[in-house]
Amino acid sequence: MNKIALTEKFALFSEYWSPKIVGELNGQSIKLAKFKGEFVWHKHDNEDELFFVVSGMLTIEFRDKTVTLNKDEFIIVPKGVEHKPFAEDEVLVMLFEPATTLNTGDTRNELTKDELDRI
Amino acid sequence: MNKIALTEKFALFSEYWSPKIVGELNGQSIKLAKFKGEFVWHKHDNEDELFFVVSGMLTIEFRDKTVTLNKDEFIIVPKGVEHKPFAEDEVLVMLFEPATTLNTGDTRNELTKDELDRI
Repeated sequence: MNKIALTEKFALFSEYWSPKIVGELNGQSIKLAKFKGEFVWHKHDNEDELFFVVSGMLTIEFRDKTVTLNKDEFIIVPKGVEHKPFAEDEVLVMLFEPATTLNTGDTRNELTKDELDRI
Repeated sequence: MNKIALTEKFALFSEYWSPKIVGELNGQSIKLAKFKGEFVWHKHDNEDELFFVVSGMLTIEFRDKTVTLNKDEFIIVPKGVEHKPFAEDEVLVMLFEPATTLNTGDTRNELTKDELDRI
């Protein structure tokens, strides 16, 4: 049982759209990710997903609106809700979601990560 | 579905050791709390608990060690592990834990909060 410093963990990887597991509790995972550019439209049929911005600015498009998140802001995307993350510049994000959550949800493409590293 | 800005939420309350619910997902709650001074020794028999420091410095005593957390650092306290939070000065904390988690765990005293406000 050790503390996790986000700054140290973010220094360990540079690839975008590739969440890393940094903690697990109650069947949920804490993941860190760097986003830049445009992701794909997708939804998670069974999992609510929390995006917390650690640094930078994250835009999430929904079918009916767009939400922009800055540092120390979060949003909970309920299961079944289509969303598309976008970041003009690099953004550092902490995700809180069930361990079973696939990054691209119901959409499979070259961005899909079936196995996540634990860092 | 709206974004939550931690700064705005923390401005809504001032009492210490009284977590407020700011989000819920997958049976888990996101809670914000202000700590200052010494809490009580306790454990949660069924829930792992995550403490994330938003601002300030949080010390958590365990029976075999003491961990100090600064901004953007977190620790996961596994179920069954006795702990006692302490903060010399005010610290702002975000908690991730099951909705069922009682703040004082297996210890009931004047700090116990059976009903949490949602802000």
